[in-house]
Amino acid sequence: MTVWQNGRLCTGAEARIDPADRGFTLGDGIFETIRAAAGSAPLLPRHLARLRQGLTTLGIPLVVSESEMSAAIGQILSAKGLHAAALRLTVSRGVSARGVLPQGPVAPTVLITAGSLPPALPPARLIIAQSTRRNEFSPLSRVKSLNYLDSILAKQEALARGADDALLLNTQGFVAEATAANLFVLKNGRLLTPPLRYGALPGITRGLLLELCGAEEAEITAADCVTADAIFLSNSLGLREVAAVNGANLPMRPETVTGLARRLGLLTP
Amino acid sequence: MTVWQNGRLCTGAEARIDPADRGFTLGDGIFETIRAAAGSAPLLPRHLARLRQGLTTLGIPLVVSESEMSAAIGQILSAKGLHAAALRLTVSRGVSARGVLPQGPVAPTVLITAGSLPPALPPARLIIAQSTRRNEFSPLSRVKSLNYLDSILAKQEALARGADDALLLNTQGFVAEATAANLFVLKNGRLLTPPLRYGALPGITRGLLLELCGAEEAEITAADCVTADAIFLSNSLGLREVAAVNGANLPMRPETVTGLARRLGLLTP
Repeated sequence: MTVWQNGRLCTGAEARIDPADRGFTLGDGIFETIRAAAGSAPLLPRHLARLRQGLTTLGIPLVVSESEMSAAIGQILSAKGLHAAALRLTVSRGVSARGVLPQGPVAPTVLITAGSLPPALPPARLIIAQSTRRNEFSPLSRVKSLNYLDSILAKQEALARGADDALLLNTQGFVAEATAANLFVLKNGRLLTPPLRYGALPGITRGLLLELCGAEEAEITAADCVTADAIFLSNSLGLREVAAVNGANLPMRPETVTGLARRLGLLTP
Repeated sequence: MTVWQNGRLCTGAEARIDPADRGFTLGDGIFETIRAAAGSAPLLPRHLARLRQGLTTLGIPLVVSESEMSAAIGQILSAKGLHAAALRLTVSRGVSARGVLPQGPVAPTVLITAGSLPPALPPARLIIAQSTRRNEFSPLSRVKSLNYLDSILAKQEALARGADDALLLNTQGFVAEATAANLFVLKNGRLLTPPLRYGALPGITRGLLLELCGAEEAEITAADCVTADAIFLSNSLGLREVAAVNGANLPMRPETVTGLARRLGLLTP
């Protein structure tokens, strides 16, 4: 395992998280999943802008500059011989003694890892999770934090019910997002996605679909999902069509979804 | 740093969490904070019962037996020369590649650390957090999971507002608990605490107060807090009186709180 950690490439046992790191003890941190193609990550500035916003919400200082981050990504891609990759950038508050807050100043842990891009997946069969809800009352619903257990519970429920993934409702019962992706619903020629205040994460690809592709924010119910003209999921690694929700088969629009993915640079050349 | 990790005592660089441990990458795990006095942890069976229940909720297998855990606690107390201690037992799902769920079987990471018992704290000045809410719709509200960021946000807000700690409301606006403690309200001779379905963690000390000391579950509002006859907080390390909520001073009942702490064995001899 080769990782970039706080300024340098580390391998094997050097790549070590301290057992008192608050990322491990309390999920006290944040991450970004970033797509790299042809040896670079063109959306890095957007990811770093979102990271900065999340770190401000959590009160964690950003200790690595944008140019250092960009150089680090180049280093790890090169060390691992990867051109196309799923990068992960993790920032935790750092190492501290027991307690909800650290007693004194702590130095954040910054970790970058890289792996192959996942293969394109077949259209997803979704359920609407019953095991948990997304908390739109928490600012964490708008931060890609290390607190990922609600999504883990929902995805476990999906597999147990014979599906591939789950949609999470918010506490008021409106659809918020999938376990690691935003949701887009095609309906009467419009492309709709839940507003952030409904518990949706401000996904980078979601933002591009709103800015560049005419998508709009709208309240989405479970009933809207089963009567949609088509549904797809978006995250930083790509778009994925949805074949069914709660057992109801949906029409599919592969040409629409592929066209959007191409326009956003999300197809591997 | 000496820790007990997956079967043995480790020191220094040996005490290492893998950067791909899901406890670090996704907060995918659970913990217990356990009070030890005179070299043993008398409530360990209750902590392990709650741990087992939480691991079942998360779908993580328990790989260490009760007797092994008890022996491990003895080892770490002895290695660190501690008789009274705050122990922390952490179980994460283990190391896996990127993804909401691991692709194959993973071996849980089990970590035990020990530190001195914190000193008795002066009565707490509390605020009612406005920055976030506790999600009573998620089963995680009843699990002491590694997803601790809502409490971290609330405690940061408390310090920023000149207080010591915060009470969290649930999404319906009822009081759930403090950032690392349950809440008990004395009112008209009754001892009241929010029900679990309102987003309260099933604290071990909370359970003892309900079973042995006549406490009762009841809906508690912010208004109930400022008009209480007294309030205290409970967690596995002890009880703490509350001096004020949102700037309103409260009557205090040190003899009542000390009497309950003595009865529950929470006073250091």
